Amino acid sequence: MNVNIEKIADFLLKKNNFYILTHQYPDGDTLGSAYALSEALQRLGKKAKVLCSDIPARKFDFLKEGVKDQNFDPETIITVDIADTALLGQKLFKYSECIDVSIDHHLANKDFAKLSFLNSKAAANAENIYKLVKALGVSISKSMAACIYTGISTDTGRFKYTNATPESYRICAEMIEHGANAAFINRMMFDIKSREKIQIERMVLDSMEFYCNSKCAIISLTNDMIEQSGANDNDVDGLASIPRQVDTVLVGITLREKQNGEFKVSIRTDEKIDASKICLHFGGGGHMCAAGCTISGDINHVKKQLLNVVSNILGERI
Amino acid sequence: MNVNIEKIADFLLKKNNFYILTHQYPDGDTLGSAYALSEALQRLGKKAKVLCSDIPARKFDFLKEGVKDQNFDPETIITVDIADTALLGQKLFKYSECIDVSIDHHLANKDFAKLSFLNSKAAANAENIYKLVKALGVSISKSMAACIYTGISTDTGRFKYTNATPESYRICAEMIEHGANAAFINRMMFDIKSREKIQIERMVLDSMEFYCNSKCAIISLTNDMIEQSGANDNDVDGLASIPRQVDTVLVGITLREKQNGEFKVSIRTDEKIDASKICLHFGGGGHMCAAGCTISGDINHVKKQLLNVVSNILGERI
Repeated sequence: MNVNIEKIADFLLKKNNFYILTHQYPDGDTLGSAYALSEALQRLGKKAKVLCSDIPARKFDFLKEGVKDQNFDPETIITVDIADTALLGQKLFKYSECIDVSIDHHLANKDFAKLSFLNSKAAANAENIYKLVKALGVSISKSMAACIYTGISTDTGRFKYTNATPESYRICAEMIEHGANAAFINRMMFDIKSREKIQIERMVLDSMEFYCNSKCAIISLTNDMIEQSGANDNDVDGLASIPRQVDTVLVGITLREKQNGEFKVSIRTDEKIDASKICLHFGGGGHMCAAGCTISGDINHVKKQLLNVVSNILGERI
Repeated sequence: MNVNIEKIADFLLKKNNFYILTHQYPDGDTLGSAYALSEALQRLGKKAKVLCSDIPARKFDFLKEGVKDQNFDPETIITVDIADTALLGQKLFKYSECIDVSIDHHLANKDFAKLSFLNSKAAANAENIYKLVKALGVSISKSMAACIYTGISTDTGRFKYTNATPESYRICAEMIEHGANAAFINRMMFDIKSREKIQIERMVLDSMEFYCNSKCAIISLTNDMIEQSGANDNDVDGLASIPRQVDTVLVGITLREKQNGEFKVSIRTDEKIDASKICLHFGGGGHMCAAGCTISGDINHVKKQLLNVVSNILGERI
């Protein structure tokens, strides 16, 4: 049932012993939301613990700073930044049927909790947590401010995506006043890379090829490259944005070889070109500017099939 | 003479026919400041023109959108984001002695104008222009909002540097409400690269070497690489931040070969290591986390000299 934030606060104030569940492959928003809320509840004298099916990357460690490690049996289960219980992941899936409160910002939220606060206008779920903390009457500490800032900064790609609203900026301003070290957070979230990530990036840059009068670029990520670089899934994250960084490129294609010889294709396009239409040709889909599909076969044949479609749309020869 | 923003506004309201001078090697802040102010003055029925010694990069073209091209003889000369008349560059240097108004945010401003507004707490000079436009009683248009947002976003490295204040965020929030397309601006300013820049980046990544238990990384940029890639000065900008992106690296060194066989050395360090102290060994200097020097000789010898000093500071073997 969807309720307003005050109803959620009233409910939480009456309860104790909270488990706060984050989504699998945890990011800055689910973790920032969870740790800020956990600290707020602990400051109210309640017990609270953050759980995740996966081990978060070390760069998120600072988010835990304001939270005490507590052991107890849960009375109330909360999910943050989770649209669907399938996203709880393997370890936390056992809680799917007994979620008391969901706080989320995904329009597609499946309303699986007894009480839900869903605000899809929020760029980050951390903005909802900011409102909840205020409704709980807890003042925002330096560590909570860092958590909320991190959620907003990561979910907006450091204010790069269209989802960032004036309110996102104003909450961040307030978080800095509460002591959030924005420069440190943004360096940790956006600048720092592992040696393996640098290595895989340089291999991928080396693979870049231009077609259609430089309006299309293709990069490839093969299993050999993954093995040689020692890169893991985190390191590979975000590579699909590289081809479109070139000023002439309207269609950027990333081919990722899978274990079974198929290629996972990610397409990023200029706003005037429909990426999902290209992917539909191959049984895939997605959004206007970001879509995907899977194609099997030899890599050169995969490229050729894609380029046939793309060159037609661009009105250019391959 | 330093005065408050109302005094500057009073002065401008009494004058007509403005030349607004930007600094050489123009960036988003000097251009954003100039075009926002130019539009404000034109909206007051005055004549205004933006001048620069260099031709701005094409990515800044959208900043001109709200400004009409006007030809006239100047009555009043304004500088924006200029700390010293030496920064006017060759073409505009002739105006050095007759600057009426300077609006700036550099602490080191040399107070060369008849009237100056200097606010060094502003992350970007565009924040001062925002205040001036309000003091002039002009409402902020969509194009002026884009100019002011661009100044703040570029001078804060898209909110990455320590200079961004809560006020920077709040002004940006207001600019978005006035119609600034933050996603477009940030893509233009931060994502888009020329093919040549991508090419030089991949060459520089290929040159990266690790020393001192991976706490030090060195990248090299030779004249051969510049020639092979076709990169220009703009393309080479920002490469010095690459070595420190690796999570283990505390000291990042960039060697750039000069025409005379010397190497320009840029050093970026973790906040606990004094970069200027390293550069002082070689007759250079700078700040705590960013410094530079020049060393001549064979590249391997240059590396060795640097690594002798760095390994000592890090307490690690080369």
